[in-house]
Amino acid sequence: MSPKVSKEHKEQRRAELLNAAKTVFIEHGYERATMKHIMDEASVSRGGLYQYFSSKEDVYEALLEEGLNTAMEDTEEILKNEGVSHWDLLMRRLFGEDHDPDRMDPMAPSNLEFFITGRNDPRRRKYGKERYYYGLKIYKEVIEKGQACGEFSKKYDSDLIARSMISFIDGLALDHSILDSEDVKLKEQSLLFVEYLKMALEVE
Amino acid sequence: MSPKVSKEHKEQRRAELLNAAKTVFIEHGYERATMKHIMDEASVSRGGLYQYFSSKEDVYEALLEEGLNTAMEDTEEILKNEGVSHWDLLMRRLFGEDHDPDRMDPMAPSNLEFFITGRNDPRRRKYGKERYYYGLKIYKEVIEKGQACGEFSKKYDSDLIARSMISFIDGLALDHSILDSEDVKLKEQSLLFVEYLKMALEVE
Repeated sequence: MSPKVSKEHKEQRRAELLNAAKTVFIEHGYERATMKHIMDEASVSRGGLYQYFSSKEDVYEALLEEGLNTAMEDTEEILKNEGVSHWDLLMRRLFGEDHDPDRMDPMAPSNLEFFITGRNDPRRRKYGKERYYYGLKIYKEVIEKGQACGEFSKKYDSDLIARSMISFIDGLALDHSILDSEDVKLKEQSLLFVEYLKMALEVE
Repeated sequence: MSPKVSKEHKEQRRAELLNAAKTVFIEHGYERATMKHIMDEASVSRGGLYQYFSSKEDVYEALLEEGLNTAMEDTEEILKNEGVSHWDLLMRRLFGEDHDPDRMDPMAPSNLEFFITGRNDPRRRKYGKERYYYGLKIYKEVIEKGQACGEFSKKYDSDLIARSMISFIDGLALDHSILDSEDVKLKEQSLLFVEYLKMALEVE
């Protein structure tokens, strides 16, 4: 077998394992999920899983990175286009490709658990900080470029608006984890947040 | 000893125990704190603590209620005054008596832990929901009364604005638990949120 095929096979296997892990974390949350759950979900042996990931934390970080890297690549790709609407891109980053304000990432509750219960672990803390700044960079870049081309007002600092977007998403994710869907009024709150962004960026 | 004195004594003892528990939860967080930590901090025996509280969860709920009840009583008291500024009252609820936007409740990280890790426990979930709606009621009442007397615009529903206030606070509390203070830019984000509220309530 050529090394290229072997590499491709490995990448595909890794992706399958991550998919199975995702299902497990959505069902059990981070703390209660185990490597055994992931083995069962993916129908692999202990060796088959540990060949790719050394621990539950390792699996989780791979899942977190996957999501953020996709968002970063997608953003960079769209920003390359001439005459791009930075507002549309911002909405896409907030509510997904279909701009649906009623959708919540099913991984959100486990993500919160992962960072909250691990907040006193130096490694997890460092990781959380890196991730915060990486996510911040995505929003910030879109806002900056929109400000540079005159689509957005420069009234507020791009860094501050980007941070407020993260706080809002985190707050909604938190409420969504604790309360039932009908109690959160996700869609209505999201639409009000869009009004706020229009105010801050002076967009019609 | 008259029953009245005995009751007062009991209430004072209970308050002392809650104070000690608060110190413990701020230091250890909810999950890692134990009843033994509270006994040591309050210098009481096991019996002395269990006479007042049956479990760590019981202690924690008492602390949570204390904070919310104080906020509710304070709000009701201020709303009784003629010519009250509903805007000032809203700022007081958000940032405390001194309106300091750089302050964060030191209990916030443990509060998040308490609700996030317990989100699949039916009792904790029910409690979280009750607490959410009780907190919502406080903000909502201030906004409604401000709208009724013409101080605030009726452009947006009081319920929705009140919910967005909770989401914002929850999001900031979350970021503050995971990141260092200098990374959160608490003050700047809070001031931008105040701008948002001015926009939503049409306040100058």
